[in-house]
Order: sequence, then C-alpha cells, then structure tokens
Amino acid sequence: MEIVFDLYQYKIKDQTKIEVLGWVRSNRNNGKLGFLVINDGTCFDDLQVVYKKEAISNFEEIARVRLSSAIKISGIFTLTPTAKQPFELQATAIEVLDLADENYPLQKKEHSHEYLREIAHLRAKTKTFNAVFRIRSSAAFAIHEYFNRQNFVYVNTPIITGNDAEGAGESFIVTVRDDDKYHEDFFDKKASLTVSGQLHAEGFAQAFRSVYTFGPTFRAENSNTTRHAAEFWMIEPEVAFSDLNDIMKLAQGMIKHVIKYLFDHNHSELSFLTANVDAELLTRLQNVYESEFAQTSYTAAIDLLLAAVKNGHQFVNNDIFWGMDLQTEHERYLCEVVNKKPTFLIDYPKYIKAFYMKINDDNKTVAACDLLVPGIGELVGGSQRENDYQKIVNRCLEMKIPTSDLQWYLDLRKYGYYKSSGFGLGFERLLMYVTGMTNIRDVIAFPRTPKNLLF
Amino acid sequence: MEIVFDLYQYKIKDQTKIEVLGWVRSNRNNGKLGFLVINDGTCFDDLQVVYKKEAISNFEEIARVRLSSAIKISGIFTLTPTAKQPFELQATAIEVLDLADENYPLQKKEHSHEYLREIAHLRAKTKTFNAVFRIRSSAAFAIHEYFNRQNFVYVNTPIITGNDAEGAGESFIVTVRDDDKYHEDFFDKKASLTVSGQLHAEGFAQAFRSVYTFGPTFRAENSNTTRHAAEFWMIEPEVAFSDLNDIMKLAQGMIKHVIKYLFDHNHSELSFLTANVDAELLTRLQNVYESEFAQTSYTAAIDLLLAAVKNGHQFVNNDIFWGMDLQTEHERYLCEVVNKKPTFLIDYPKYIKAFYMKINDDNKTVAACDLLVPGIGELVGGSQRENDYQKIVNRCLEMKIPTSDLQWYLDLRKYGYYKSSGFGLGFERLLMYVTGMTNIRDVIAFPRTPKNLLF
Repeated sequence: MEIVFDLYQYKIKDQTKIEVLGWVRSNRNNGKLGFLVINDGTCFDDLQVVYKKEAISNFEEIARVRLSSAIKISGIFTLTPTAKQPFELQATAIEVLDLADENYPLQKKEHSHEYLREIAHLRAKTKTFNAVFRIRSSAAFAIHEYFNRQNFVYVNTPIITGNDAEGAGESFIVTVRDDDKYHEDFFDKKASLTVSGQLHAEGFAQAFRSVYTFGPTFRAENSNTTRHAAEFWMIEPEVAFSDLNDIMKLAQGMIKHVIKYLFDHNHSELSFLTANVDAELLTRLQNVYESEFAQTSYTAAIDLLLAAVKNGHQFVNNDIFWGMDLQTEHERYLCEVVNKKPTFLIDYPKYIKAFYMKINDDNKTVAACDLLVPGIGELVGGSQRENDYQKIVNRCLEMKIPTSDLQWYLDLRKYGYYKSSGFGLGFERLLMYVTGMTNIRDVIAFPRTPKNLLF
Repeated sequence: MEIVFDLYQYKIKDQTKIEVLGWVRSNRNNGKLGFLVINDGTCFDDLQVVYKKEAISNFEEIARVRLSSAIKISGIFTLTPTAKQPFELQATAIEVLDLADENYPLQKKEHSHEYLREIAHLRAKTKTFNAVFRIRSSAAFAIHEYFNRQNFVYVNTPIITGNDAEGAGESFIVTVRDDDKYHEDFFDKKASLTVSGQLHAEGFAQAFRSVYTFGPTFRAENSNTTRHAAEFWMIEPEVAFSDLNDIMKLAQGMIKHVIKYLFDHNHSELSFLTANVDAELLTRLQNVYESEFAQTSYTAAIDLLLAAVKNGHQFVNNDIFWGMDLQTEHERYLCEVVNKKPTFLIDYPKYIKAFYMKINDDNKTVAACDLLVPGIGELVGGSQRENDYQKIVNRCLEMKIPTSDLQWYLDLRKYGYYKSSGFGLGFERLLMYVTGMTNIRDVIAFPRTPKNLLF
C-alpha cells in the first residue's frame, strides 16, 4: 500500500511494509550503505530512507539519484526511538520515477531570499518557503472557519469596479483598449481593480447581518518597501447592529483563532521558522494568544508621544501634534514600548480618516480603530460606519468626494441602517507576523511589485 | 438578552423572555392586533411577531413602521404547535431603531430578476437572493473544507499576470497608462488579468503534492449569454503523482461534498428555491448525490451522436464528425438523454485541447476530461498534464505558442515531474446547478458583463 497524508500522523506499527512516493531532498552513501531524505509533499517533515547494497537490486543507480528526482520506495517502516528522527524506512526496493536534471537550481546549500524570489516556481521546495506557504494555507482556512462558526456569510465582492472613490489615484486601470476612450471600452466606462470590498460588503451586511470578504485587492503604489505589494489579499468583515467595540473583539478573536489553529496544525513549521528565521516567533505568538489587547485613544497616544520626546526619546519625526498621521515608528513605540502588546488605537481625528467613518459626539474624532502590533505596526484598520445619510453626504462634500458613483452606497442609510462596523486586515501582514518573514514578497506565492512581473 | 444566530437552531423554552433586533419584512394590523414578520439576518427563516394595543405603549407608531426598518423587539417566545410556523414572539415592547424611507424599492410584490439586477446592493434582502447568496457562502466553505480534510494546500495564484498564453486574446489589460507603452508601465511590461491559476498551481503541486486555488478569474469575452461573465471564481486543484482517473474521483467527491454540506446546512434555502425557482432542484441534487458519475470516451460519444442523428434526432448542428468541438446541445444530449446523469467525457482529440495535456499512446487523443451535467453542460474541465519536457515543447511549437514567458512552467518537467493532474471548476456554474438559477448574473453579488459595470 502507498502511504500518503502526513506520515507523522499515521500510527504505523513497527516493521510494517509500506510504499512511499516522494522527491529526493538529499542523498549520500558510503558505497555499501546509503541515506535518502525524501519528502512526499503531504507533510512538512521529511522521511529518512536507509538503502543497503545487499537489500536493493539497483544500489548504484540509486546512489547517483539527484536532488528533486521523483522516486518510489518500498520498505519496512522501522521505529528508531534512540535516533534523532522517530522512525525511518528500510528500503527493499527503490524505483526512479523521474530523474531530475543536473542543473536543478536548489542544490543543497543556503540560498538568499532574494535569489529564491527569482525562482518562485521552485522555492516552495525549500524548507523555509514550504513552511511559509503551509502556514499561509492553514491561516486562510482558520479565517474561513472562524467566521463560518459564527454564522457569517462569505461574500465575493467584485474585483473589477467602476468606483475608484477609495483608490485616490492608486488604482490599476482594467481595459481592452490601448488608449483612454473608456466610453468605448469593454464596460462602456473606465474600470479599475478594487482597493477594498468594504462598500459592497456593507450592502450585504444589511441583508445577512454578519458578512466577510476574503479576496485580492490592488494598489498601483509605486513604492518599493518590504511591506507593500501591488496585489495582496484582504479580509473584511462587516457586521450590522454592531459598534466599534464589537468589531475590536471580533478582530482580536480572529487573530487568536489563527494562532491557535497554527499551534494545533503547524507546530513543525513554526518550530522550524523559530529556529531559522525569527527566534522570537513562538514566544511572541504565545504571548499574543494569551494577552488581552490594549486600547489607547489617539488623543492619549499623542500625549504619550509628546512625553516620550520630552523625556529624550528620539523619533525620526519628533514633530508630534494632535491631528498628525502617525508613522510606523510612532505606532511601534506605542505597542512595543508603552503597552508591550497589540494595541487598538481608537478615535482618530476625522480629517485623517475616511469619509464613511462615524463622527463621534465631540465632532472632532471618528469611531475608528487601528490595531498596532509589535514588530509590524498597523495590522488592522476598522471603524463604525456613519449611519446618518445627511452626515455622510456632508462628509463627502467636505472631502470633495464625488457622490455620483457612490449613490447606491449612501442610499443604504435610507433603508433601516442601524449601526454597522467592520475592519480590514491585510492577509500578508498577518502572515509576516505569524511566520517572522520580514519581506511581504516572501509570503506571496508569486509577488507583484513595481517593475516586477515574473511568472 | 439579545438572541441572534439562527433562532430556529435555538432550543428556547416556551414563555422565555427574549430580545431580537431585525429588519421588517411585512407589517399588518387591524387597529388592535398587529403582525410583524422580521428577519434578523442570521438565518433564512423569518420570525413572526405579534403586537397588541394593550401590550405595547406605542401601537400606532409600530403600526406605521415601514418595510426594511430596523427595530428592536422585547417579547415572550411562544411555541405555536398548531400554527404554520413553530413559534412566534409576543411583543411586550418594540423600539424603532431606524425607520426606512417610503421609497424603499423592494415593496412587497414580485420583482423580476432583471429589475433586481439593477438594485444588486439591495436584492439580497429578497428571499430568493438571500437563499442564493447563503448557498454561495456555504458552497465556498464546503469546498475549502473538502480540500482541507484531504490535506491540500490552498495557494493564491496571482491575479495580475505577464503570461497570457492561455488568454487567447480574451484577457483584460492591467495598466496605469492611457496608451500602449507597456515597457514604461507599472510592471515595465504588458500585464493582464489571469484566466486560470493552473500553471502556477502546477508549480506548487511539485512541492506540496496536493494543492488547490480558489479565486477570481477573468475573460474579456464580448458575449452576452446567461452562462458567461467577465469576472468569475474558479476552483483549480492540482495533484502531483496522480492521473486522470484520480482527479475524476476528486471532482466527483467535491461535488458530492458540496451537495451534502448544503443538505446539512441550507435545507430551508433549497426548499424555498425548489418551491419558487426550480421544482426539480431537490430531486436532482439527491440523484446526483447518490449516483456514480458515468464515463464515456469522446470517440464513443461521436458514435452515439452519429447514431442519434441517423435515428432522426435533430441537433441545431447535425454535422457530427470525429475531431469536432462538441456544442452544449451535444453535451446535454449525452448526459441527459444517453447517460441520464453527470458524465465525464474523456480522451479528446489533441487538436481541440490545450498544449499542456498529456498525449495518449494513440498519439491522437489527450488524457482530458470534461464533466457534463444535466441542465448545464460542461461543469468541470480537467486533464493529466504532459510530463515529458520535449513532448510539451513540441506541442507548443506545433500550436505556435511562444515559450519565452512559459519557460519556468516547462522547466517544472526537468526536476522530478512524475505525473500531475488537475481540473478547473467554474464556481458560478456549480452555483447555478445547486440553486436552479438560470442566469450567471443571479449567482454573483455584483456581476460584471459587457457594457455593465454598476456598483
């Protein structure tokens, strides 16, 4: 019988005869005795295969088998309680299914993450990226599971949109033409790639109460940083009848659920990344899982930053004032130095936030929250939405946002709109946080950044 | 206490005092006694609220409450074993949270699906579309669950791609310019929206054995049919070490898992759609769930169609010959009249199929399958992939496909590529099949079709 699906999960008895198909990760021998390390793709951990000249008929052929070759091994599953790995396979027959070329680019040595980005079609075969993309898959499922268990309806908001109110000039155009005659284009108008599914999700929340999106979003932002990509995935829940506090609880619960899921399903991967990429990873995740996230108002945060400067703390930007847009260094100071844990910053000045956020009674701030996390900065941005039709129209006027394309969205307020709140979480930011990878390009299968469209 | 999350799931005791927030679906009264039907968004079924002049303080106000208004009801949960609905709420207090405008477009009468498409931001508040989008959400989760349980890794293949080999001129261009100077564009080259994640998924299958994509894909096809949209979601599993038979089993298992999940979680919705949209729906799903899908070779299918024409069957296209591309009428004949169940058509002529499909030993056909289902036609297209580097390069040359952008993909064959198979399933086609809706625009939240980009 062929054994697949995570050998380490199997309760195979000592001395059972099994068959395994997999790819060679290493191969060494001393002329009489050889060791193959193989991975069958179904789990993160490798399997050691022992092959002996007297036990298999093609020892010389196997001794020459190159890395990444596909092979089939029949053998005796053998418990090895005193060795490093808990079991090994004693080969009785090995068949080469497809011999890899000599020039396989991932020969056994360390490669830089930069180099591996150039072979993104192969890098998932390395331990580091194998771990990262297994965690990505698990985290995605954990998110779906979290919302599904709470009866949320998953909605696929449109990718192509005619509404770039939120895009602020950073949207990609979608066209079938090579000029700007958009009225003769596929949709008879200018179309662009979505920057957020929130507005559409709000509509669906009015029918289903609790909804979420989980799909790709786009920014044509021409900046080469380790935290920005032109294409990334967002999770955007929206809950009718809920306020800012409710969705902060929802966000905290979601992040903890993802961490718990990874602890339960990807401990090998997390341990590997802790040993090889980010020594603090497991400790940090454990701490976040166990902590109650802090809450600090924007106004209090400004006071804390002013006090820090007064006490001699040097920011790159030391010009702190109420109304400023906080930079990552300020955000990190607040969650890393002051609160020492994930921190919701709430009640921002209305002029630095989006038109749809609910204005607080002070008429100066809005019911918005950003979740700041140690090592990353902003992870989540959320708000309670303005429910008053006239107030939101006035905000659009104030901010010079054309309302013609948004009328359907504003109209939602006319038909029984009692509170609604939601947040957006950049999936790749979360993945950087739970893998310890420091470049967003390394948590995306085939990343898209300025001047970079390989594959 | 506020009660949410599917009242019908709650085991609430008779005469319990509860509180419910929801939207008004209907409101009638005789001056002393009134009935509100409300829905709180958390389940498909509505709740009837009885309000009496002597029991609440604001009877006149409530009697005038308009459809879609948001209200809060305190009342006594009362079992009604002899009535149509199993329970009702006897109001003790009702508060109007937000009164809807008089011009709410969904007044209580039947609306055409065409009209409702023009108010896609509101149509999920109707019973039919509420059912459809609940089923869409459930089906998406069922698909993730199906693959997750079998240890598949979920991979987000890129949406923006520089490789339009598969696009065949039907790709949308992604640009930040209004001309065709693509070498000065955001990515320094021409970029387009993906038509399939398969090629990238194949790369990941070489690391994880079993992977799947589930994301949006695009066609700039200028055809207005009930089955085509410019933006739709695809599920594309890819399994290394597997052949055509394996992935046909996988496809059948997936469809059955979705049906089972809907039976378990969305019986109210399926019953409603059976009563109001497609009388055959529940029977058909039950039959599909219980049947073993048929298999017919393309060559045998041509013989069956020739025999049908000979026996007097009239197709719009009666010109049947080996090598033709079958039309929907032929596909439907084969699964509806001949096999009377979902049917995998296999081993197509190589010249009508894609370059990456494995050529069979006859050198005339490829190891491809299309799943044809009664009432719909093609639902799934899959194949075993050509594993031989030289053969796939030759096929590209034969079909005049430029290999420069594809080199990374072809190279996968060089590094231990022993079999790989996969399929693509159009999510919306599946949804039409499991909801009975006959227009693809009615299973997409905000559909995109030629000359149509509302919202």
